[in-house]
Amino acid sequence: MMSRYTLKCISCGKIYEPTPNRYTCDECGDLLGTLEVVYDMKNIHLTRDDFDKKAGIFQFKDLLPVSSHTQVDEFIGGTPLLKFKGLLGQNEVLIKYDGISFSSSYKDRASIIAVNKAIELGYDTIYCASTGNAASSLALTSAHTNLKTYIFVPDQIPKGKLSQLLVAGAEVIPVKATYDEVFDISLDIGREKGWYCRNSAINPYLLEGKKTGAYEILVQNDYIAPDYCLVGVGDGTVISSICKGFKEFYQLGLTDKIPKVIGVQAENASTLKHVFDNGEPFTPIQEEVSTIADSISVGNPRDVVKACKFVKSTGGHFINVTDDEIISAIKEMAAKTGVFAEPAGATSYAGLKNMIKNGEINKDDSVCIVVTGNGLKDIDAVGKDADVTFYTKDEAYEKMKGE
Amino acid sequence: MMSRYTLKCISCGKIYEPTPNRYTCDECGDLLGTLEVVYDMKNIHLTRDDFDKKAGIFQFKDLLPVSSHTQVDEFIGGTPLLKFKGLLGQNEVLIKYDGISFSSSYKDRASIIAVNKAIELGYDTIYCASTGNAASSLALTSAHTNLKTYIFVPDQIPKGKLSQLLVAGAEVIPVKATYDEVFDISLDIGREKGWYCRNSAINPYLLEGKKTGAYEILVQNDYIAPDYCLVGVGDGTVISSICKGFKEFYQLGLTDKIPKVIGVQAENASTLKHVFDNGEPFTPIQEEVSTIADSISVGNPRDVVKACKFVKSTGGHFINVTDDEIISAIKEMAAKTGVFAEPAGATSYAGLKNMIKNGEINKDDSVCIVVTGNGLKDIDAVGKDADVTFYTKDEAYEKMKGE
Repeated sequence: MMSRYTLKCISCGKIYEPTPNRYTCDECGDLLGTLEVVYDMKNIHLTRDDFDKKAGIFQFKDLLPVSSHTQVDEFIGGTPLLKFKGLLGQNEVLIKYDGISFSSSYKDRASIIAVNKAIELGYDTIYCASTGNAASSLALTSAHTNLKTYIFVPDQIPKGKLSQLLVAGAEVIPVKATYDEVFDISLDIGREKGWYCRNSAINPYLLEGKKTGAYEILVQNDYIAPDYCLVGVGDGTVISSICKGFKEFYQLGLTDKIPKVIGVQAENASTLKHVFDNGEPFTPIQEEVSTIADSISVGNPRDVVKACKFVKSTGGHFINVTDDEIISAIKEMAAKTGVFAEPAGATSYAGLKNMIKNGEINKDDSVCIVVTGNGLKDIDAVGKDADVTFYTKDEAYEKMKGE
Repeated sequence: MMSRYTLKCISCGKIYEPTPNRYTCDECGDLLGTLEVVYDMKNIHLTRDDFDKKAGIFQFKDLLPVSSHTQVDEFIGGTPLLKFKGLLGQNEVLIKYDGISFSSSYKDRASIIAVNKAIELGYDTIYCASTGNAASSLALTSAHTNLKTYIFVPDQIPKGKLSQLLVAGAEVIPVKATYDEVFDISLDIGREKGWYCRNSAINPYLLEGKKTGAYEILVQNDYIAPDYCLVGVGDGTVISSICKGFKEFYQLGLTDKIPKVIGVQAENASTLKHVFDNGEPFTPIQEEVSTIADSISVGNPRDVVKACKFVKSTGGHFINVTDDEIISAIKEMAAKTGVFAEPAGATSYAGLKNMIKNGEINKDDSVCIVVTGNGLKDIDAVGKDADVTFYTKDEAYEKMKGE
């Protein structure tokens, strides 16, 4: 049987058949040669009635590279799209909130694809390197399967995420190293052992799970594409997937435009912005980085070419925000909307504030921000505020007299 | 216009009209006289086709005492019902997982009712006392409204929950006191100020939000009622609501039986079990309590008569588990199912294990356990495991040679 899709190198355009051990382009290598899953769009016929606002990601099965094999599949995706009129002075701001997900982050959309693919291909072991969310997501979404799960984590991992890994019973390999180094170590070992790889930038199928976030934004907004979509960026895979999702629904005639996708990076971890601003051909660089937003603390982005090309194709670009702006954004967004985000998840809100302030986004522009993880994942980020003073009973009564 | 429902005292049966300031029975008082919302079931005609497996709680609008007024309403409820064959040796175990909810706990079902009711009645301020989940739920679900929110919390509140409150911008009154004492303080102050009360045991409408968990279990299980439903118990409001939900769907002919509802308490916080075991008439008592499961650490349960009467009416009863069993349950459930629960949320799993071990539940009995909160809310409960040793890069390679 012909496969429904092929794999295309993001740099040289070479086409590969989707054979089980095909991850990246032989000629361009792991960094330049990440692959894109390309469907035969002319032979896919879908209508708006085919989709539901709350169903999980497998409702998009014609546009996914794997079938559903696990009993948690139907509960991945279908996260809220909240609509706030007047927020930040905008007519309307949409918030796609993936903090409410099986493992409380956007990464579930990718993990469940990897878990299903590993099962479909007959693997008994799966692995990943992660700053935390991909790790906890893989550990929890694979927990009920027969897959053995190895997870390589750097020492910057927040405790909430580490707790998720450990309770899920995954084999955790904590390494005193940066995310970038841990990524390389995991690849070395995983390839030698012949395990299935759940590193998003290397495994082309994972983007296919993540792109469903964009599909859902459109389905839940009655197929009206917003003018802008802002996403926090580290490795570049989530933003690539958002671009791909919007583009595919546009190609299928399900929506009438593609939003400008804006990548928001932490000021001291903005490698992708630097590459993008340097212009084409997009050339990977490696930088020292430091930010409170652990999920996007990436100095050697692994999907750099794809992220830059895809963002450019939407007419978007990359911007920076400071760590202070990220922390303020967590609090302001929670207080104004009830959406409690981890630092990387609030980065998109911080970016939106800056773009409005700078006049880059107007009041009438429709905007969607993607919140990729729950604030409970990293309470230390807003933690010093949690050192409150407890009143005695008498003091409590006394204090409230004046309210 | 006649109201669609009346309020009935749980002890003396006196009927009250649902006037705005009616909370409890004048004759029986706050503790004995909590009220039940009673609908005219004969005039409510619903069919199985009226409901969707993933829609929010307001799809049950004919059975709710308030209309929808906020833009987060559609995202409350509709949480996963996971089905695991062979779990704990059972043919099938259902897990209702409300850790994936707007504020990551079951309490959102009640908070959103309170928020809507306060708006509908024209209040400008709302308050509650809480061990944490009700508080963080109220703070986050009311954040986007114009309501001012006061929250009274005891000093045992876990940091994750406190963080949620503080980022949400609620007015937090932390008191060096037990939950039971803080509850009384909040009532004193809230009544004096004339604020809207979101204390579940006092406000009869909150149970109506919580009962939707039982409705959803039935809708999501194709209206087949399980033989048993296990729920962690503190104040007694969640379990009362679960019983009420099952009963109402049975009365409406939507399902053909009512599950036996089992209340699971922490061994050192099992006041409700003691009251229940003492038999009718159920007489409130007050005890010193201590458990790691903060959400159910209640020595003076506020819905004691209702909880005992309702559980008895289902043919259920109360059981105990130890704190050690709760901690083990968190880990075992996460490792076997991917469901990561806070201590109170894992109490139901611990109870199921004991009932199976004691031969009280057979392999063929269908069972549903309710998981009321996300493990990320209280990672300290499994926290000492998070003190892992990080390998150097060389050590990591060396260690993995043997895998």
